[in-house]
Amino acid sequence: MRTVTGGRGTEVLVSQRIARTDGPPPVSSEIVTAEKRVLRVLEFEVAAGTEIAFELYNVIYTSNDVADPHAACVADLQESAGKGYARLWTEHTRVWDGIWDRSRVEIDGDELAQTLIRYNIYHNVIATPAHTEHLPIGARGLSCQAYQGAAFWDQEIFNLPMFVYTRPDVARRILIYRYKTLDGARRKARRLGYYGAFYAWVSGDDGREICPSYFFIDVLTGRRIHNHFNDWQIHISPDVGYAVWHYYRVTGDTAFLRDYGAEILLEVSRFLVSHAYFKKDKDRYEFVRLLGPDEYHENVDNNFFTAYQAKYVLERTLESYDLLKEQAPERLSEIIQRIGLTEQTLALMHEMAEKVYVPHPDPETLLIEQFDGYFDMEDITPERLAERLLDSSEYWGWPNGIATETQVTKQADVVQQFMLHPESHSTAVMQANWDYYEPRTQHGSSLSPSVYAVVAAWIGYPQRAYDYFLRSATVDLFNTNKAVSGGTFIGGIHTAACGAAWQIVVHGFLGMRVDPAGELTLDPHLPEQWNGVRCTVTVAGTQLEVYAGPEGVTVGSLDSGQSPVTVRVRDEARQVAGGATEQFSY
Amino acid sequence: MRTVTGGRGTEVLVSQRIARTDGPPPVSSEIVTAEKRVLRVLEFEVAAGTEIAFELYNVIYTSNDVADPHAACVADLQESAGKGYARLWTEHTRVWDGIWDRSRVEIDGDELAQTLIRYNIYHNVIATPAHTEHLPIGARGLSCQAYQGAAFWDQEIFNLPMFVYTRPDVARRILIYRYKTLDGARRKARRLGYYGAFYAWVSGDDGREICPSYFFIDVLTGRRIHNHFNDWQIHISPDVGYAVWHYYRVTGDTAFLRDYGAEILLEVSRFLVSHAYFKKDKDRYEFVRLLGPDEYHENVDNNFFTAYQAKYVLERTLESYDLLKEQAPERLSEIIQRIGLTEQTLALMHEMAEKVYVPHPDPETLLIEQFDGYFDMEDITPERLAERLLDSSEYWGWPNGIATETQVTKQADVVQQFMLHPESHSTAVMQANWDYYEPRTQHGSSLSPSVYAVVAAWIGYPQRAYDYFLRSATVDLFNTNKAVSGGTFIGGIHTAACGAAWQIVVHGFLGMRVDPAGELTLDPHLPEQWNGVRCTVTVAGTQLEVYAGPEGVTVGSLDSGQSPVTVRVRDEARQVAGGATEQFSY
Repeated sequence: MRTVTGGRGTEVLVSQRIARTDGPPPVSSEIVTAEKRVLRVLEFEVAAGTEIAFELYNVIYTSNDVADPHAACVADLQESAGKGYARLWTEHTRVWDGIWDRSRVEIDGDELAQTLIRYNIYHNVIATPAHTEHLPIGARGLSCQAYQGAAFWDQEIFNLPMFVYTRPDVARRILIYRYKTLDGARRKARRLGYYGAFYAWVSGDDGREICPSYFFIDVLTGRRIHNHFNDWQIHISPDVGYAVWHYYRVTGDTAFLRDYGAEILLEVSRFLVSHAYFKKDKDRYEFVRLLGPDEYHENVDNNFFTAYQAKYVLERTLESYDLLKEQAPERLSEIIQRIGLTEQTLALMHEMAEKVYVPHPDPETLLIEQFDGYFDMEDITPERLAERLLDSSEYWGWPNGIATETQVTKQADVVQQFMLHPESHSTAVMQANWDYYEPRTQHGSSLSPSVYAVVAAWIGYPQRAYDYFLRSATVDLFNTNKAVSGGTFIGGIHTAACGAAWQIVVHGFLGMRVDPAGELTLDPHLPEQWNGVRCTVTVAGTQLEVYAGPEGVTVGSLDSGQSPVTVRVRDEARQVAGGATEQFSY
Repeated sequence: MRTVTGGRGTEVLVSQRIARTDGPPPVSSEIVTAEKRVLRVLEFEVAAGTEIAFELYNVIYTSNDVADPHAACVADLQESAGKGYARLWTEHTRVWDGIWDRSRVEIDGDELAQTLIRYNIYHNVIATPAHTEHLPIGARGLSCQAYQGAAFWDQEIFNLPMFVYTRPDVARRILIYRYKTLDGARRKARRLGYYGAFYAWVSGDDGREICPSYFFIDVLTGRRIHNHFNDWQIHISPDVGYAVWHYYRVTGDTAFLRDYGAEILLEVSRFLVSHAYFKKDKDRYEFVRLLGPDEYHENVDNNFFTAYQAKYVLERTLESYDLLKEQAPERLSEIIQRIGLTEQTLALMHEMAEKVYVPHPDPETLLIEQFDGYFDMEDITPERLAERLLDSSEYWGWPNGIATETQVTKQADVVQQFMLHPESHSTAVMQANWDYYEPRTQHGSSLSPSVYAVVAAWIGYPQRAYDYFLRSATVDLFNTNKAVSGGTFIGGIHTAACGAAWQIVVHGFLGMRVDPAGELTLDPHLPEQWNGVRCTVTVAGTQLEVYAGPEGVTVGSLDSGQSPVTVRVRDEARQVAGGATEQFSY
């Protein structure tokens, strides 16, 4: 069997061996190929009532993992059969226990929620190629042809945070995948007239752009639609930069920053410099002709989310530049030389970090405009808007879908920024914008409900957060999201929603984050259905068990050999020493 | 009867008076209103064979012209009836003889062409409100509701050149209309986030934008289309600036430049400063998200035509600034104060004039790219492309019409620039681009054939020029252009094509222009059907009769009191003194 991942031929070999454990041997054994099935037919001559038991060993190797999948299959089958079922089972459960020990989330008092969080964590785990630095997390897991096993921004923003906090080694490998695919991002930038790294909107194994320019068919005319996911949705690049820094902030892994992260950040920032326009009369940089997270509005200027991400990543790039200059000047020189970073571009990064225009909250309404002119567009609810559909499978967006000239958004956009930068705005600003944008959001993307859930938990809406948690965590269980959009089949497991479920509980309800000063902060606001939440996380190499209950928070360091961690619960900060446990009361 | 011009109620009064000249008086007289007609019924008692002759006086006054149309009608009827038919006829023919004397174009040897040029000049004359500074030239003359009697860029680029060379007083008044509507252009600029003067794409009597954002209906879906004629087609502003300078260059009317033109130029350039983006890494200004003359391609960057016009007008603005600084410093101060021109903006105008990015001819192919990425689009002929129509009345352009992602252009765009700036590129460049763009041009605009005609005459294609002359000059006679586009009725007389017919003959075949140094230059290339062309033009206040025949050119100054004019025919330059005639042989 052959399948294709990311545009490159990948050989996938499935081998099987039957080890008879009990009963008579077969009188004949034959391989039969029937349509799409390959069958092994065994004939036995047995007396009535005879029991035959088999041990069936299946192994899968692909050319993504080993040079010779066939040899690997043969060797593994031999070794596995030698070990026997019982030992393999023990090894298997040991691996899974280890994963669960590190990723544990226990919800006390809500069996449904407990089942859902475990289901979602499981799918985020199995969709992630944890063993390799060469493959991304497929946006639809293993099961959807349309998404080709390739990565979107989903990977950095939705899948990865769980791994950053639970299995930083896995997060590191996924980010190294982004390092290894820098060349693809560089080629894409050059092709479109920029430089630096413009990451693929849909990124396969070698980082080339595999998002088609014609993704949808206009069901009303039968004509193809030229969407601009791949060329205008530039936030993918600062999103990768954001994830690099987020990983670094939570883990303190300076070796990663030196060997991989700094180069990614510099290349992303070079791209941002090459993309931005300067308005001389306004003395500011602008990003023009964008597609923000809300994909129904293409061709917009000064998208808040994109601008904020860009400014943030430019600042972090300069921070990492200074860090390397101090701690690893030779590596910095090597990067500068290889990527051709000029003094002029570096100066522009400094100027841009200061002068990128990021829309601010209106002083009266506290509202942030999603992009220039958004508030001037028709104000209508998604439900009323849907009445204008001529065909239920119409695409709502570009170029002339029903949502394009309205305030109806496909998914969180302004609120998405809050989720990534909880320290950036006051609760009042987050609340005002949540209240404004939420009724105008269609949730045409499975990413959207989780964003509203996380932020709802922070702004005093725990039950709205809970409702959105259920919605997000059941997207595949109840098959609530459309499997076809604009004529394209987009089904499969929504792995981003799986990763997001963990974020809703840990980032949202527990209010957990590592703040810019490096402190682990917690500010739990649980829904009334829950008595408490327990979870295991790893921060700066220290594994912690966190429990948030009705009276307060307990944080325990799981090993006395671990470094102390500063933990802040609401206004109280304490050091949690290696192996110690600290209790915080509300 | 009431009609509406330019969004403002205009009262139109038609009055009639019958003066009996011969025969018995009527026994009764009655006004009868029947459906859309108003009838005057007269009864006579007459013997068989009696002849009754009437003189019927009709006058029309509108509130655009006089404060009290009713009083004006009454007074005029009384005066006209007092004069009587014969005297009125004499006065009438005197006026028309005067117009023809100044606008004469005689084509020797081609009766069809002679008829056509006279027909087109006539329509350009009657469509032009020559008597007032308050009204524009309607793009469809008097006869089309869709265009509302309003002006487009057609006025400056197609209608006006004939008047600049034949009746500069009329051209002056039409340009003063643009001065008087500056406030509308200023308001439009502010509304869209700019400053200075962004002229209306469709300009009525007060200069406000009356081009609807939804001009067409998508005939396939019944949904309206948001075209961006009014907000992205920014070349209208430098086009007006171009016409100001062209008028000034040909007439030498410094009083106009001082009192009107300089302020228009400064406000247009302020708009250009506020619109442009600076690319720091490329050290150049760019114009982004444009619609050039070719309306099938919206949302394009660095449109060659727009960029060239902008740079040209910025340069001329600074030239006129220096001129006023020297000759009318008080007027300049007054303008600066009124429009709020800052030193910073003036400095940006200087920098932009130098650093606006204008696409250059490729050194190998000599081709100029119409806008960024044009050459990468699908290359197909308009004829082949038309086979993709699902409905013959579909709009070909934005947002998803059949032409939007192809190289098929609605009308001349690169070649349009040559027509306006004949000194800007070599014949080889003009020819290479004419050859490239002409087969890709659909001529969906009636403006287009004339542009190809003028430039064809310059690059050694006199017969192609002649064919395009016939096509352009007969657009209304043969009704060759569509009257309905995207569901909108756009019929009427194509007055721009009428003005363009004069340009094809005089600018095109005679190769007449006033060059930047102020010399009247001629370089005739007549089609083989023609023996010669005679025309009357006025340059720098001097009326000249020009004849181009097979052996050479004769230029005569029509009055000995006139100033001498320098005339250059191909490589030979001579002064033509007042009342003198000079002959130039080839």
